Order: sequence, then structure tokens, then C-alpha cells
Amino acid sequence: MKALLLLGCPEVPSQTPMAIYAVDKLTELGYDVTISSNPAAAKLVKVSDPKGYYKHKNVNIDNFLDELEDSDFDLILGFVHKDSAATYFITYCTLMGNVKSIALVFQRDESLVEEYAEMVEQSTDAEIIKVKAFHNPNPLKVNLDKALNQLKDEN
Amino acid sequence: MKALLLLGCPEVPSQTPMAIYAVDKLTELGYDVTISSNPAAAKLVKVSDPKGYYKHKNVNIDNFLDELEDSDFDLILGFVHKDSAATYFITYCTLMGNVKSIALVFQRDESLVEEYAEMVEQSTDAEIIKVKAFHNPNPLKVNLDKALNQLKDEN
Repeated sequence: MKALLLLGCPEVPSQTPMAIYAVDKLTELGYDVTISSNPAAAKLVKVSDPKGYYKHKNVNIDNFLDELEDSDFDLILGFVHKDSAATYFITYCTLMGNVKSIALVFQRDESLVEEYAEMVEQSTDAEIIKVKAFHNPNPLKVNLDKALNQLKDEN
Repeated sequence: MKALLLLGCPEVPSQTPMAIYAVDKLTELGYDVTISSNPAAAKLVKVSDPKGYYKHKNVNIDNFLDELEDSDFDLILGFVHKDSAATYFITYCTLMGNVKSIALVFQRDESLVEEYAEMVEQSTDAEIIKVKAFHNPNPLKVNLDKALNQLKDEN
């Protein structure tokens, strides 16, 4: 199975730790993980795991759009903490058709959580995890675990 | 040899990736690493390495102050990106006496880099690495590498 992990801009301190966490969880569930992000977010992930223990492929979030229609992912997991990230997630979901998709929407500000969740809900069939969080990763971790464990039961 | 890695508040997206990077580098140089931080920063480091490949000990930045005078570290490396982090670094250096110390001062805003560097310079004998950086970890990485390689030559 193949999973695509979509990262947003790297301004949120919990994104890179949660990216590594998600790579590890998805690998345990049997997925080969590809991370799609901008170069800055990719650099942070690389520095975060200098020995490369948490195996994954990297692609550029813009360039990879051209290859999406022909790709064969079984899951798309998107980190959505800005409207640009919501837009990327929606674009990816649209181009990939009927792939199972999960949006992890998180923000310090609850009204932004609702706003981004609504954007995603209106344009995709994604499962949406909404978390009010900024630099404490635990609420993100707990909710992502729930969604992934459910996925495990479905597979 | 023992190194103490001092983290600031976890608001800066490059801090956690750079913490893991520093643990790895210091371990390669033969140090046992202890990370001293607040609970939020410690949680991010933990999530960043769910399998615990990058071995280190964790201590609480406030509680550990009481034990510092009797501790036997050979190196203190502090991440300084807020004035509270500068204050902690100075306090730690003062309590630990003549231990070799390095402050990695980084901020998006150049005038803050200068301000925090000056705070550290006025109160410690630390080697100061100044970097204008926020979410691109590369300037941090390059400058930290330089300082650590120099340390290797000194040892």
C-alpha cells in the first residue's frame, strides 16, 4: 500500500515532529510513505532525522501535481494549518479521484480550525480531524492515532 | 563526555529538528546528551523520534537548576531564540561555572539576534553562533557543524 503525506508551510512547530510520527505510524500499518511538501518543509524533515531511520520518499508539492493523476496511492493524509495547505489538499484530492483521504486540520485559533475544515468539507470526501493545537503535539497525536487505527480495522 | 542541550520555548519550527540533529552530532562526537527543556519542547522531541533512535536523557529546565552545581557536564549547548532562552542559558552557565559553552542564537529578525547575542556575551564566556533563521534549518546546521567540528579538534 502507498500513502501520500501532504505537508503545509513549515511555520507550525508541531508539523515536522508530527510528520515523522505519521511516517512511522503509516509504515507500521504497511504503507510506503511519500512526503509531498515545499523545499523548506522537506529540509526540516531531513534535519529531523539525520540518519534517515524513518524511511520515506520526498516529492515537491508543486511539481508532483503533474504526476498525480497517474499515481496509485491508497491513502492521502494532509496536514492543514493554513488556507494554502487546505487548497493544496483539495487540489490533490480532486486530481487523485476516489482515494481514501484524511485531513488533519490544526490551528491555535479555533475559528481557523472551523474555517479550514469547512473548506475541506465543501470540496472533498475526506475524513476530517479537527484539533485546536499549536506546539503541544499530543492532541494531534491522539486524534491521528484514532483515525489511523480505524483505518487499520477497515483494511 | 557529557553534553547538556538547552532548548527554548517550542515556538520556532526549526528548534525540534535541530535538537535531534544536535543530539546525533554530539553522540557521534562521543557525548552522552541530556536535553533540558520545558515539557512542551520535550513532547515535541519525543514525537519527533517515536522509536527513540536518537538516544538522550530528558530533564526539566526549571527543576534541573537545583542539580546543576553538582553536575559534571563537559559542554553546554543552548538554543537561544527568545530572551527567556537567553536568560536560562546565562543562568545555567553561571551555575555550572567554567564549562565550555556554545550559544546558538537564531531569530528571523536580525536585531533580535544581536540583542540576544549581546545578552549572552555580557554575562558568559560562551562561544556565540549568530544566525538569522526561522524555518530554514540549513544556516543553523552549517554554523553548528562548524562549531562542533572545531570542538572535535580541541578535544
